[in-house]
Amino acid sequence: MRTGRQTFGFEKVFLKTGAAIVGEKEGRGPLKSEFDQILSDDKWDEDSFEKAERKMFRAALETAKRKAGWENEDIDVVIGGDLLNQIVSASFAVRDLSVPFLGVYGACSTICESLLLAGCLIDGGFARRVLCAASSHFSTAERQYRFPLEYGSQMTPTAQWTVTGAGCSALSREESSIRLVGGTVGKIVDFGIKDAANMGAAMAPAAADTIDTYLRETGKTPEDFDRILTGDLGVLGSELFLELMKKRGWKLDNVHQDCGCLIFHPAQTAPMGASGCGCAPVVFNGAIRHAMEAGTVRHVLLAATGAMLSPTTSFQGENIPGICYAVHFARC
Amino acid sequence: MRTGRQTFGFEKVFLKTGAAIVGEKEGRGPLKSEFDQILSDDKWDEDSFEKAERKMFRAALETAKRKAGWENEDIDVVIGGDLLNQIVSASFAVRDLSVPFLGVYGACSTICESLLLAGCLIDGGFARRVLCAASSHFSTAERQYRFPLEYGSQMTPTAQWTVTGAGCSALSREESSIRLVGGTVGKIVDFGIKDAANMGAAMAPAAADTIDTYLRETGKTPEDFDRILTGDLGVLGSELFLELMKKRGWKLDNVHQDCGCLIFHPAQTAPMGASGCGCAPVVFNGAIRHAMEAGTVRHVLLAATGAMLSPTTSFQGENIPGICYAVHFARC
Repeated sequence: MRTGRQTFGFEKVFLKTGAAIVGEKEGRGPLKSEFDQILSDDKWDEDSFEKAERKMFRAALETAKRKAGWENEDIDVVIGGDLLNQIVSASFAVRDLSVPFLGVYGACSTICESLLLAGCLIDGGFARRVLCAASSHFSTAERQYRFPLEYGSQMTPTAQWTVTGAGCSALSREESSIRLVGGTVGKIVDFGIKDAANMGAAMAPAAADTIDTYLRETGKTPEDFDRILTGDLGVLGSELFLELMKKRGWKLDNVHQDCGCLIFHPAQTAPMGASGCGCAPVVFNGAIRHAMEAGTVRHVLLAATGAMLSPTTSFQGENIPGICYAVHFARC
Repeated sequence: MRTGRQTFGFEKVFLKTGAAIVGEKEGRGPLKSEFDQILSDDKWDEDSFEKAERKMFRAALETAKRKAGWENEDIDVVIGGDLLNQIVSASFAVRDLSVPFLGVYGACSTICESLLLAGCLIDGGFARRVLCAASSHFSTAERQYRFPLEYGSQMTPTAQWTVTGAGCSALSREESSIRLVGGTVGKIVDFGIKDAANMGAAMAPAAADTIDTYLRETGKTPEDFDRILTGDLGVLGSELFLELMKKRGWKLDNVHQDCGCLIFHPAQTAPMGASGCGCAPVVFNGAIRHAMEAGTVRHVLLAATGAMLSPTTSFQGENIPGICYAVHFARC
């Protein structure tokens, strides 16, 4: 049901289970016990990083499927995407499953865009069981978006470290302990940021816009949530986001966390934390889902943000517009 | 409503209007009188081909909006994408509209994926008015997927010419003379084709799979349609498609047309015809929509296909998997 200009409410959509597969470095971070599988190394017995990312995406789908007790025929549709050109991690990973596929692209907001669409398809009577998945890989993203790895380029002070990981959520009409309550479709928000090494700043205004919209259009307040989780704003982006929310009249300091600041120990990573299309889905399907199942966390607003740039647009002097999709999960 | 494993049926989803903006070469083809606007040249007063593609995408949205009599605030969501890395034509084009945006990627099948999702959102009660759009540009696609334009590379005998064009459909709950009846979500189909200069062959099996599925899951036959339109299989791909359909028991020779074979005079283009993410949306929103409004064509199955490759997957020796989404429009 449409409950506002940009906001949907769902009646009967449940999170059955989830899966999180991460890289070796992520597997040494503070959330290491929350993941289903940790890669032995970044190539995971494949002959390219791209093939390793695809294998990880496939493993996330297969793990969620197994935990849900589903066969391929039970899955009505897979919705997902990734950061690689032409979303080839997603499309090659679903190839052998022989299931209907909807490819989406929202950069690092992809998982929340997928979850929103899954909610619409399930609540609208178009699907009963849906897998939503997204991935990123440090080595594939770095060489596609920035520099050849062999350069050994130093990161700038505002840069974030791309997460190697793939997460998958299994959604269904069948009741379970976690309900997808609703969510908000974002707009493209452009704050005039041009620095491709400062994604947090480019995405923070979109996060503020979408989360403010969800709160206003549902009449909720930050106090209604145990966690308002942004995807990968990092340290600097989170500061900007909290500042922008304060200007809109919301004080989020006690409830806000950023997946990009949770996944690594500070000493492990770039000073501004982590980012990447796989960041929010592995943190959510690992740690957050477990806490919700245990009942220690009851209301979560997951708001993943994407920077809608390409190397070409940056070369051509364009700004970096951002987008954010938010989804609200509740412990029943 | 879900009416089969992969197929949806819609109750109240209507095509209000559409828009088609094309390049100068397309504007000299047999459908020239069907388009809303024809570019003066491939750069359209911009300083790069990418900016011209984006301007064309924006013009398609604005034209459809104007013809529908909608303001930005009336649009519940824009769904769309394009062939450029990170779908920057779509995301930059919607930036200034300040409307909710869902970015999708299905290569040249993007318009039909968008239309299917729009149907679900409207029929499920999540949106009332939706714009679906997709674009491609010969000069941006050629240099991203193949060779720098300056090389002046010769096309191979099986290559197709990428259409410069952007098309947009305005869908709504409000009754109009054309109804979106339903459609089918495709699976990734891999026939083992590796030749990136023979996209028709890579995509034909996906077209056969999805169209066969729509016919089987709805109990319809080819005789129920005035046109079964594929997106951009071209001459060779269409032959393969008809052959594959014959093996599945369907004779389509009298009802099948391919948008990639309709848009240019044979002397104007590559021997195998045209292709591109903008091909199906400009042919459909131009010529086909006009024929449906006039009542000369009543039932159309529009099945756009996408080749889910990237230059990286081809360099790494992968096959080219295809996907196809089908949508059924009917004159009321």
